[in-house]
Order: sequence, then C-alpha cells, then structure tokens
Amino acid sequence: MSAGLPELTDLLGPIEGELERMRAIIGAQLEDRSAAVSDMTAHVGRFRGKQLRGSLVLLLGRATGNLSAEHPSVAAVVEMIHLATLVHDDILDGALVRRRVASVNQRWDNQVAVLLGDFLYARAFSLSTDLSSRLASRVLAETTRRLCVGEIEQSARRYDFEMSQEQLESIAGAKTASLYAAACELGASYRMGQDEPADPELGREMREFGWEIGLAFQLVDDCLDITGEEAELGKTVGTDVEDGKVTLPVLHTFARADATKRARIRDIFMAPGLERRARVLREELDLGPGIEYTLSRAAELVASARGRLAKLPPSPLRDGLFELGGFVLGRKW
Amino acid sequence: MSAGLPELTDLLGPIEGELERMRAIIGAQLEDRSAAVSDMTAHVGRFRGKQLRGSLVLLLGRATGNLSAEHPSVAAVVEMIHLATLVHDDILDGALVRRRVASVNQRWDNQVAVLLGDFLYARAFSLSTDLSSRLASRVLAETTRRLCVGEIEQSARRYDFEMSQEQLESIAGAKTASLYAAACELGASYRMGQDEPADPELGREMREFGWEIGLAFQLVDDCLDITGEEAELGKTVGTDVEDGKVTLPVLHTFARADATKRARIRDIFMAPGLERRARVLREELDLGPGIEYTLSRAAELVASARGRLAKLPPSPLRDGLFELGGFVLGRKW
Repeated sequence: MSAGLPELTDLLGPIEGELERMRAIIGAQLEDRSAAVSDMTAHVGRFRGKQLRGSLVLLLGRATGNLSAEHPSVAAVVEMIHLATLVHDDILDGALVRRRVASVNQRWDNQVAVLLGDFLYARAFSLSTDLSSRLASRVLAETTRRLCVGEIEQSARRYDFEMSQEQLESIAGAKTASLYAAACELGASYRMGQDEPADPELGREMREFGWEIGLAFQLVDDCLDITGEEAELGKTVGTDVEDGKVTLPVLHTFARADATKRARIRDIFMAPGLERRARVLREELDLGPGIEYTLSRAAELVASARGRLAKLPPSPLRDGLFELGGFVLGRKW
Repeated sequence: MSAGLPELTDLLGPIEGELERMRAIIGAQLEDRSAAVSDMTAHVGRFRGKQLRGSLVLLLGRATGNLSAEHPSVAAVVEMIHLATLVHDDILDGALVRRRVASVNQRWDNQVAVLLGDFLYARAFSLSTDLSSRLASRVLAETTRRLCVGEIEQSARRYDFEMSQEQLESIAGAKTASLYAAACELGASYRMGQDEPADPELGREMREFGWEIGLAFQLVDDCLDITGEEAELGKTVGTDVEDGKVTLPVLHTFARADATKRARIRDIFMAPGLERRARVLREELDLGPGIEYTLSRAAELVASARGRLAKLPPSPLRDGLFELGGFVLGRKW
C-alpha cells in the first residue's frame, strides 16, 4: 500500500459504472413536473460534494460480493438523505439571519431550504419504498431518526463545555457516522427481494466499520473548521465556533486550560458582538494540542475500522477500503 | 340527517377506541431516550388539533369493513406527517423573523422547528416501514412528496394574482387535500400482510372523496383566515395575506376589480411597512362576494364527495361521513 495520500478517484475506480447509475437515479429523482420544484432542485448541484456515503454502499457491495442491480438505487437514497440534511443545515436561526443576510434576494431562503430538504427526504423515502427489499427503507428510516436526534442533541449542547468526550462522540456519531454506518451495512447485506440481510454478522461488522470511518471523518472536519483555509475547503470555516458548537479540539483545549483561559474561551464563544470568533480563538489560544489530540483519536478510529476489513475476502477493493482511511485522515477538503 | 351542524365528537364516536390507540402510538413515537428530543416533542402537543386526517383512516376502515389491527398505526403515521408539515410551516423567512421575533428566547426557534419536523417525518417513515404491508409506506412517501411540491408551488406563487382558479386548486390540493386523499385511500384499502390494496377501485373512489373533502377544508380555512376571530380559531388570522399567499377569496375579488382596486390590492399585499395587511384588506375592500364564491365552491366539492359515499354499504358510519361534509363547511375553527 502506498505511503502517499490516496486519491479518492482511484479508490472509486472499481465502482465507476455503478456510481454513474447512482448519479443518474439521483438526477431523475430531482426532476419534477413543477417548474418551481425543478428550479429549486437545480441548486442542489452545489451540494454534490464527494458522495462518499453513496460510494460506500457500492464499495461494500462489491467488496463483499453482494453487489446487486438495486445497489445504485440504495446508494442514491443514502446520498439524497445526506443532501436533505445538508440543505436543512443551511437554515439559519433568527440571530444569524439578522447578522448575515443583507440582500432582499435571500428573503425566502429559509422557507425554500426547508421545503427543498423536505422534498429530498420525501423523494428518498419514496425511492426506497419502490425497492424489492424493505431492508433499505427500514435501515434508512431509523438512521434518519438518529441523524435528527444527533442534530437536536448538538443544538442542545451549544456552549456546553462540561460535556464528556464520550457524549461528544455519541452526538457527532449520531449526526454523521450513523449514515456512514447504514451505507456500509446496506452495501454488505442488502439483497433484492429479501427483507432479511444477506449475512447479518458481516452486516453488523461493516456497520461498525462505517461508524468508525464516519466519526473519524467528522473529527477531521471539526479540525478543518478551525485550521482550514476557506478557498481550499470550498466552504466557510469557523462556522462551528460561530454557531456555538463545541468540538473536540476546543473541548480538549478547554479541559486543560486554567480558570482565566476557560473564562476567555467562554467569552469568545458567547460574546454577541464578536464576529469571526474562530479567528479570535485561533489567534489567542494554542489549539495545537487539541487539534493533535483530535487527529490522533481519528487515527485510532481508522485503525479499528481497518481491522474489521479482515472479515472481507482479500481483493484490490478491500485494499481500497483500507486506503480510504488514509484519505479520511489526510484530506485537506 | 340533522339540519344543524354536526359535532365532530359525535362523528368520531364509533372509532373512539381506535383513536385512543392511535394517540397512544403517536405518544410512544414522540418519546426518545434523548432528553433534548423529548423536551422538543413535548411542545408538539400544542399542534394536536382535530386529528381529522388520522380519523379518516379509521372512519373509512370501519365504513368499508376493512378495519385491521394496524389501522391505528397507519392513522398515526398520517397524523405524524401532518404534524411535521405544521412544524415546518412555522419556519419563518428572514424578513418575518426580523418583523416578528422580539425575544432572545426565540433565538433558536427556526433550527428547532426544522429539526423537530425532520424528527417527526423520520419517526413516521420508520413506523410505516414496520407495518406488515408496504402499501402505507408507498402511498405516504409519495403523498409527502406531493405535499412538498404543493408547498413549493405555493411559495413560488406568492403575490401572483394572474394564476387561474384551476392552478390555485391544484396547488391547494397538493398541499392539503393529498394527505386527506391518502388517509381515505389507506383506510379503505390497507390490508395487513398484503402489499396490494384490498379493493383498488373502492380505494380510488375514497381517495377522491378525501381529496374533495380536503380541498373544501382548505378553502374554508382560507375564508376563516380573512373572516375568523383569533380567539375562536385559536390561531393567528390574516397570516395568508401577511405571507403574500393569494387565496381564492382574494383571487376572486381581484379578478372582478377595476384597475384602481387591483393596484390597491397589490399595494396592500406588497407594501413593506404595512403591518396587519389582512385587517386593511378587510376594511378597505368588500371581500363578501369572494368569500361567498369560495364557500359555494367548497359546498360543491362536499356535494361531489358525498355522492361517492354511495359506493359504501349503508351504515350509521356512512351517515357520519356524510355529516362530516357539514362539519367542514360549517366549522368556525
């Protein structure tokens, strides 16, 4: 295995045909007779991103020898649920609307985002109920519930510097890792025409693989939100701090700070007039150890996930899944 | 049949036991190990309302002799989807947030409402995928899509006085009547353990019954938004005009107005500084004929819906469904 960082496109080579089918299915699902709807879904393109979750359905399907003609549809449902969560993440609270929104064009932004997200969820569920097995509907409906619970918990834990790392990981896991877990479980165990999984034990193991990879992905994301450059990431950095979200690098820094520093961290998070809190945080505090600790925790999760791949037959694709961990840890975007 | 207005509680008497089960199922679905989630779902109680949609699943189930042990669960899914749409209807656009929100307590209102609505949708779909027939999942996933399309179309048609009555009814129907239609269809044709409907033709006929009752309900609602009293309705009136939503009473008034009056109607709808537009509209214009026209259209729909009941065997419950039309037309809340 190469020591350098793997390219995501190399990893996805073996499933390129299925990925194309997945993208075509998503495209068809976003079309609607209503021009107003099609206008809105056209904007969804900007959220497309890496499509890692959908890819995992296909990668695990092929790596387990379980790939079926319906796997691209299952992958499309997974990606559409992810798209819906991204769209709803864009909803701003009243305070941020007041702070950020300047233009009259954005007058309806919140309502549009809510409706577009709802439409994507509905399409995803509708597509999943057309499949010949109910396994995807069941797993993904339950996963969507967990995603929501994770989001709600995260919202309730804003400005909470007293939570434990375990609580933080449980919330981040529900919010992010649960969809990776479902993607891997379904890839490994979805069977056409059968409501029961192909190999329940392998399904559970690959579910754990997905959970660990997904949680590692989120932890790296939390670091990038502090250290990343906006141009490279293609998204605004520092939004976690802006939104009062306490991530592991900050929690770790806070836990090891003296009373003066703790008060200052709270001040930076809470101060109503302090714009660009992330920059202030970065400039005033040494977040290095917190970042390092978070990345080492992500590496630990990836190592555990990689160990689970021993349950799969050896293949170039299994090696690719191994490399995926390197991508998650090494990515700059 | 009585000439006076029927009481909704009388109509629901024959299904009181099933309604209690439906409410217990909804209650259980709203509970969550997460305290943050349970805190949020506790607020959903205030949206409970008339539970007409869930009741229709049970009423049609009994009236067709098709009632099964899973009908209360199907009714619960229908009500939870309705609850989710109500919660998401509460999302305010930036302008309204600025105009209406005063208290810091409401800082997170939008985000909370989005997450709570998503949680309700997820729970509803999760419950529907646990049923022994896939019919409910399929019908309700597709119906949720139509609900969203209706909402999106309605949002796109704000301030649009050029739309035809047909377009308006198609949008109002998708937004409101489609869930009534699904409720009646499922009540009449849902079968445990069978993915196909019990009697497809009867299912389609009851679907039409639900569509017409639901559209009539919406048209009466649109009138109440103009003529109703807040205390009696238990909700804010005039919000349609505030939000730029052109309803049939206004469309009818506009279509019959001269150029001066038309310009004035547009002004009232568009003026950024004009608070309580509905009151101004009511005071300046004679909306009587528009209201009367809308109510007569609602009565026409109810008459057509009642005609479809001839497909059901005679029973006190069929008489009750007939009376339901009177309730829809005569309600003041």
